[in-house]
Amino acid sequence: MTHYVAFNAQRAIDYVSTLIDTQQCDFFAPGQTLSAYEFGDGNLNLVFRISDEHNNSVILKQALPYARCVGESWPLTLDRARIEAQVLLNHGAICPQFTVRVLHYCATQALTIMEDLGQLQILRGAQNNAQQFPQLAQHVATYLSHTGFYNSDFYLPAQHKKALVSQFTNPELCQITEDLFFSDPYIDHPRNNYPQQLAPHVQALRNNSALKLAVAKLKARFLSSPQSLLHGDMHSGSIFVDQQNTKMIDPEFGFFGPIGFDIGSFIGNLLLNYCAQRGHIADFVARRNYQTHLLSTLVECYSVFEQQWVSLIEQHTTEQSFKVAGYSEQFMQQVLQDSIGFCGTELIRRTIGLAHVADIDSIRDDDTRLSVQQQTLALGEQLILNAPSCNTKDAFFSLLISQLN
Amino acid sequence: MTHYVAFNAQRAIDYVSTLIDTQQCDFFAPGQTLSAYEFGDGNLNLVFRISDEHNNSVILKQALPYARCVGESWPLTLDRARIEAQVLLNHGAICPQFTVRVLHYCATQALTIMEDLGQLQILRGAQNNAQQFPQLAQHVATYLSHTGFYNSDFYLPAQHKKALVSQFTNPELCQITEDLFFSDPYIDHPRNNYPQQLAPHVQALRNNSALKLAVAKLKARFLSSPQSLLHGDMHSGSIFVDQQNTKMIDPEFGFFGPIGFDIGSFIGNLLLNYCAQRGHIADFVARRNYQTHLLSTLVECYSVFEQQWVSLIEQHTTEQSFKVAGYSEQFMQQVLQDSIGFCGTELIRRTIGLAHVADIDSIRDDDTRLSVQQQTLALGEQLILNAPSCNTKDAFFSLLISQLN
Repeated sequence: MTHYVAFNAQRAIDYVSTLIDTQQCDFFAPGQTLSAYEFGDGNLNLVFRISDEHNNSVILKQALPYARCVGESWPLTLDRARIEAQVLLNHGAICPQFTVRVLHYCATQALTIMEDLGQLQILRGAQNNAQQFPQLAQHVATYLSHTGFYNSDFYLPAQHKKALVSQFTNPELCQITEDLFFSDPYIDHPRNNYPQQLAPHVQALRNNSALKLAVAKLKARFLSSPQSLLHGDMHSGSIFVDQQNTKMIDPEFGFFGPIGFDIGSFIGNLLLNYCAQRGHIADFVARRNYQTHLLSTLVECYSVFEQQWVSLIEQHTTEQSFKVAGYSEQFMQQVLQDSIGFCGTELIRRTIGLAHVADIDSIRDDDTRLSVQQQTLALGEQLILNAPSCNTKDAFFSLLISQLN
Repeated sequence: MTHYVAFNAQRAIDYVSTLIDTQQCDFFAPGQTLSAYEFGDGNLNLVFRISDEHNNSVILKQALPYARCVGESWPLTLDRARIEAQVLLNHGAICPQFTVRVLHYCATQALTIMEDLGQLQILRGAQNNAQQFPQLAQHVATYLSHTGFYNSDFYLPAQHKKALVSQFTNPELCQITEDLFFSDPYIDHPRNNYPQQLAPHVQALRNNSALKLAVAKLKARFLSSPQSLLHGDMHSGSIFVDQQNTKMIDPEFGFFGPIGFDIGSFIGNLLLNYCAQRGHIADFVARRNYQTHLLSTLVECYSVFEQQWVSLIEQHTTEQSFKVAGYSEQFMQQVLQDSIGFCGTELIRRTIGLAHVADIDSIRDDDTRLSVQQQTLALGEQLILNAPSCNTKDAFFSLLISQLN
């Protein structure tokens, strides 16, 4: 097949069989009968699980040349399959333990074959079931600090980094983030999605000039601050977990952007779940316990992330200029303030923008759901407004605690 | 010729004749006898003036695959000829009146044919002869504000800008700036060049942690702040002038970088000339008059630059998020602080780094020259250290006046 063809299960089997038979891949032994089925929502991608006779399996993910979302359909570059595979290879070389393993990539078919993580769960669903993952904070922090540092100006020779910045230029998917995170929620736009009862709160947010100024500055940083190679979509649906393992998937939004964006998005998702638990765990004590776990996860994750960054800078910085006293502190302070701001934009856009989270949308009681939405909206607003005055992570944690109580 | 060949005068004539005879260009009438001679220093490029029988002439500039500088020779990408031609075309489309006109570009031969500006003078030489150019401030300000704005996130759709950022990725030449501006002067490096008597001052500068921290932050901005398409080498040797005209040439260092870099470099060159005049104009009153002219040029240039940026933002911003109240003020404040900082780095690196300026080096009296070097070094240091506290251009001008008196 020399042209792109959207696969069905049989085509997926044929494709993999050829790879195996021609010895291009060896994840299955040759000569077996393979089976395949499609799962996933098929909005942006086709996802197949392909198994051999011994129940060994791999995942084949193929990008579709369009996106379907809330009835809309718009063309979307197949190049995102390349971005995803190449981010996984880049991040996987730095943090193999936390990155889904790529077994094969084909540009023509815009497909990637990956290890099957079916034995793990998606974090979002698990958190909606109040499951705890004691290693999550440490793992996410390690993944973000290490992939961040080793793709940054601290470590990469400038010429190499510039080549990577070009390689990971991802204009179409960045545009989606630019619109959904930083524009739509703050204007009247048909892509927005919130209940009528939230309208006065949304209006108040749009009348808040200080907020919109802070969001404009965050958007400017997202547009023009190629600090490191981001995952680009670090929400709870992009993380597979169990008690021992954490694996990042789906970095098709990857690009060189501000370091605070990924960790801010992740923390935002912890806070969305925190707020949403009012609609899931009826028992007050049980709820507080789980919320405390989420907050501890957040505090541990950011603390370890910052510690590891500082330690990586100290030990592995190759750029001499950045070894001067005080530089890493000021750099990390900017990352903190960015993280808090981006976290706030995640809370707001997941509440009133196009793409919601199941954490909130699955709350059955209308009043509770509305009240959670008011809380996430207000929390997002306060985080964005107060980010520039958080000079230390402890100031950030204090701000959070004052807002959440 | 399908492969790169370094030209001599005859090859240059043959090349142009073919262009004319095959009607690929019409800057000369067909069938004439052409003449050519090489001028320029031949360190990085070959430059020929090619004339027809009626004394019409053009400039042919060909990149050499290496750079010779103070005895060193290192390979240097021919791609800089593409960068230069494409920056000239981009900036020429925005400001044709201030950009040398490109008549032809050939990637294979790494050459550009341009209009001949031989009737104008290079600004540096003219300023060393104490000539005044009443339009210079306005013209440079207009060129920098307009090329800056129309290549920025204020104006360009994000997807278009990202494509341009990739197109103008210029790693090898950026590396030269990264080294010469932000690294070498602050460490012991064989590329540095200063008299032994300056050594204590240089050492003091290298012991100044606050200064090195500020320089590290400027380097980080230079590395990873693709705000707009810069000229990249805005010193007094890149500007042709007469009483009515100002034409920018030689943007081979062009890339997407921080907006303050170009204007800071230009202002730095005005200040280098200001300080150097102690070695050129013996008469005190005449010297003060010329220095006052230079300072007025600086003040007018920055003021018009800022005014025009604000006005362009107000009138032509397409990015809705950036229209929020207060955004342009904060943006322009950052540009001001960057400009002052980059200006300071230009003063320092031209004093003790590899590439000096004739303004200072042509001072015959050793003591005077040394005293000027001390002044430019101290001024650069003060500008870098005080840049972050200059919140308005008037604060910057006051700082300058306090340092220059």
